[in-house]
Amino acid sequence: MRRVLVTGASGFVGRACLAPLRARGFEIHAVSRAPRPAGTEHDIHWHRADLLTAGLADGGAAAVIAAVRPTHLLHLAWEATPGVYWTSRDNLRWVRASLALYEAFGAAGGTRAVLAGTAAEYDWTGDGVLSEATTPLAPRTYYGTCKRALGDVVLADAAASGASTAWARLCFLYGPHEHPDRLVASVIGTLLRGGAARCSPGTQRRDFMHVDDAGAALVALLASDVRGAVNIASGAAVTVKSLVERVAEIVGGSGRVELGALPPDHPPLLVADVRRLRDEVGFVPAHSADERLHDAIAWWKARA
Amino acid sequence: MRRVLVTGASGFVGRACLAPLRARGFEIHAVSRAPRPAGTEHDIHWHRADLLTAGLADGGAAAVIAAVRPTHLLHLAWEATPGVYWTSRDNLRWVRASLALYEAFGAAGGTRAVLAGTAAEYDWTGDGVLSEATTPLAPRTYYGTCKRALGDVVLADAAASGASTAWARLCFLYGPHEHPDRLVASVIGTLLRGGAARCSPGTQRRDFMHVDDAGAALVALLASDVRGAVNIASGAAVTVKSLVERVAEIVGGSGRVELGALPPDHPPLLVADVRRLRDEVGFVPAHSADERLHDAIAWWKARA
Repeated sequence: MRRVLVTGASGFVGRACLAPLRARGFEIHAVSRAPRPAGTEHDIHWHRADLLTAGLADGGAAAVIAAVRPTHLLHLAWEATPGVYWTSRDNLRWVRASLALYEAFGAAGGTRAVLAGTAAEYDWTGDGVLSEATTPLAPRTYYGTCKRALGDVVLADAAASGASTAWARLCFLYGPHEHPDRLVASVIGTLLRGGAARCSPGTQRRDFMHVDDAGAALVALLASDVRGAVNIASGAAVTVKSLVERVAEIVGGSGRVELGALPPDHPPLLVADVRRLRDEVGFVPAHSADERLHDAIAWWKARA
Repeated sequence: MRRVLVTGASGFVGRACLAPLRARGFEIHAVSRAPRPAGTEHDIHWHRADLLTAGLADGGAAAVIAAVRPTHLLHLAWEATPGVYWTSRDNLRWVRASLALYEAFGAAGGTRAVLAGTAAEYDWTGDGVLSEATTPLAPRTYYGTCKRALGDVVLADAAASGASTAWARLCFLYGPHEHPDRLVASVIGTLLRGGAARCSPGTQRRDFMHVDDAGAALVALLASDVRGAVNIASGAAVTVKSLVERVAEIVGGSGRVELGALPPDHPPLLVADVRRLRDEVGFVPAHSADERLHDAIAWWKARA
């Protein structure tokens, strides 16, 4: 029996992992600070805990691990509030709490762990192609520094112990349950409400992935024995301008996109090399980018 | 009143910090797994705790911090057993426990922290001069990776919060209470016992510092407001051959040094740039290298 503990299970990425985990037959134990979200399947076991709280960072993680005895760990929990997470001291706390969790998982006999990293670990001043193998790590933010530090430690630990551990570097995600202040959700929401979407000139190219594809990719990675850092991304670069204009076409608000109302965003290109995800994990998204955009807009529309 | 909490206080480096701390008028609270060493001054408060133990990583650190309410933190505790520390899982645990300690210290109003890093964080494949400002970090070991990760996180946290924090990169140390399996202690001990000291060819140049100088330098750094990474080293490169031969001259065992009996050690040069320590902290050792070597040999002789 494969028994997975998913942290941050009520979050943006966590929610998107639950259906793929079920589809693969995992017994799912979800941990989150929030209560079980409405509509969650009843065969998903829900554990409410704040892994960050001092007393719980060890006792809590250890207690949940001891109760569940997971064979697999999918660790997604972290501070992710826009405007807060780049500089919050919770970054340090999440490194500490994540190490406590990872340590307890291994000590209890867990065999396969995937933890969430970020494309913000990479040096963004190079050619814009982010490769696990060749792009230097040079995070410019407290958030990126802490993610990179955690990734370095767990991968070094796994190398020393022989544990099967992967570090999943997530790129730019959008879709259901995205924080409404983030780019894609904000543009969709503003246009759906009839407002004007103020954007940068939008010439920068970025790697966007629908969060349900990211969830499926994370679960495919978890079910594999691929080790080390793996980018979770689309591998396709689109200009923010073209993405925003396509959203406006679908929503019907093309006259209300104000490109250039906000300052330009740097660097010009950020796109992930996804060869490890595609060739080693064997993950290819099941839907086109345009289908996924329609899907996300429909989700927000149903809630507008 | 400056009140310092010293972790690892019964260790090789920790012991060497106590006299300099006393000399500067700190109220000293020492933490260690070991009991108070014989001969420790009675005005030094001794707290026995294992900061690494799961329950104590938060509860323990927080409890000690709450009881002491230190204004200053000098965090030296780590796994340091030769042959063990390069690959031990305790490295991961020490990152976690160190973050819990640092977090509790800041939360309790602590104002100045110095934590011990290592020259093993640096890329050793360059020109051999290790500079805080210009040498890339590229640790090759689990130990170095964990130290570098901890340093990155606490310095990023300090940058975000404005806290006064320094990361002290220790180089090659020798002297009283050194583990007998380490190079200098082993050569001195072997020659004092009348044995043959089997060494590498010894052509590699290294930066050796007497641990009492390192202790004084750490305390000078702690008493300053110098922030970020600071090398704690002599800044002088000597060949291992010349060091070992000088030890043999002093001990009287020149015929018993077997240079080349062990394989060569790489890289050819490792020497720290000590301009930050000298010019910003204002630390200059009070004794010559040869005086220090005599001192260390005398210490071992008294225990032979």
